[in-house]
Amino acid sequence: MDLMPYRTFLTELAHASGELIRPYFCNPALQVETKGDATPVTAADRGAEELLRKLINAKFPAHGIIGEELGSERADAEFVWVLDPIDGTKSFITGVPLWGTLIALLHQGQPVLGCIHQPVLGQLMIGDGRETTLNGRLVQTRRTTRIEDATFLTSDPLNYRNRLGPKTNELLARAKLVRTWGDCYGYLLVAAGLADIMTDPIMNPWDIAALVPIIRGAGGVITDWNGGAPYPADSTVAAATPELHAAVLAGL
Amino acid sequence: MDLMPYRTFLTELAHASGELIRPYFCNPALQVETKGDATPVTAADRGAEELLRKLINAKFPAHGIIGEELGSERADAEFVWVLDPIDGTKSFITGVPLWGTLIALLHQGQPVLGCIHQPVLGQLMIGDGRETTLNGRLVQTRRTTRIEDATFLTSDPLNYRNRLGPKTNELLARAKLVRTWGDCYGYLLVAAGLADIMTDPIMNPWDIAALVPIIRGAGGVITDWNGGAPYPADSTVAAATPELHAAVLAGL
Repeated sequence: MDLMPYRTFLTELAHASGELIRPYFCNPALQVETKGDATPVTAADRGAEELLRKLINAKFPAHGIIGEELGSERADAEFVWVLDPIDGTKSFITGVPLWGTLIALLHQGQPVLGCIHQPVLGQLMIGDGRETTLNGRLVQTRRTTRIEDATFLTSDPLNYRNRLGPKTNELLARAKLVRTWGDCYGYLLVAAGLADIMTDPIMNPWDIAALVPIIRGAGGVITDWNGGAPYPADSTVAAATPELHAAVLAGL
Repeated sequence: MDLMPYRTFLTELAHASGELIRPYFCNPALQVETKGDATPVTAADRGAEELLRKLINAKFPAHGIIGEELGSERADAEFVWVLDPIDGTKSFITGVPLWGTLIALLHQGQPVLGCIHQPVLGQLMIGDGRETTLNGRLVQTRRTTRIEDATFLTSDPLNYRNRLGPKTNELLARAKLVRTWGDCYGYLLVAAGLADIMTDPIMNPWDIAALVPIIRGAGGVITDWNGGAPYPADSTVAAATPELHAAVLAGL
């Protein structure tokens, strides 16, 4: 399947949403609402998803769309776009640029193309399961095989502790460096060869779809917390190498 | 004492070092060395400190200088500049923009003026103990008084656990949000009213000096972990309000 036309369009989508979102970041006038699941949302999240839907519907009217903020349309189509306009809204509203826009393309229900876009830093990562680029430059995961040599990332340490319990300290104490450089930016760092492990105990389909072709395209391994299929799933473990991935699963 | 001439010069220093450092960030060619204390250093750290020293010596030859990378000169002068060219080198080399340049001015041994500069994000925070600005706009800490309502930050969770032991989980579990959005950027977030608590169990003089006039100028409280004078000290607790600061000290 030739993904190139979709890849070009994905880049256009990323730039368009980035232009919309960027002025809201660190803007003291930004209003924050709380959604039904107690997570925050802003005009930037909603505005970006509306814009992406409009652009997709104009270009590929037969394609489906699944989005975090505005639901699903034609979700059983052959091609479906999966949108998370701001993954990491807590970072976004705190003035921390570790959030990003996730856009993925599903073919027959599985992600075949995805991007992570951080418009403040100007970083656009695109993966198709075979290769992953950061601003057009090919990237690869590091060759780290031991937790003891790894930079170990997660988004929220309290969610992590709630799922893993007392084993959390034991596992994290083995890592070389532990940080909550989280949400999609953590996966970008693993794919770029700058960190080694990124795991999240709670995930939604729109959080995961773009990550799968990106991590695989960079040579990494991605599954859920039980080693099962990464999409759709309720959790994610991404690691730089198969050996490191197995070591993390054994520690969970 | 009229600090205005020093404030103008501080801004010049920040912009000059920022121009030097920025091209090294996310540059795959950057070489990382390990110092005697096992912390990383790069040509960006050393180059920026050399540049800052040259500019200070040219403008105020009688002033002293204390720097992280290149030691002290005239450290007993009436005015002494304290430099940390890249606070958060681990973030810097991982492609995470939560590092910054710290520049402080001591008068008779105590910090009277300081800046945190994040040149990739274009954020320059300056404080003089009476007022603190972010890119020229006055900022204030939030009015949060309870840990249960607080965004609680630290730089390194493993250092934190090593100092605090089993009490760590108990304290962090009370917070609304816990993150390692760390190093100087965590203090910037507290002063900007975007987070509430930032604490570090291990600090050096060049890590702290700039933070004191910034946190106080924004209306916050800063001490060491025992409630003692913040500079010089071996640790730091910064909080948005006196009530919150007292609650954190009680939990340590």
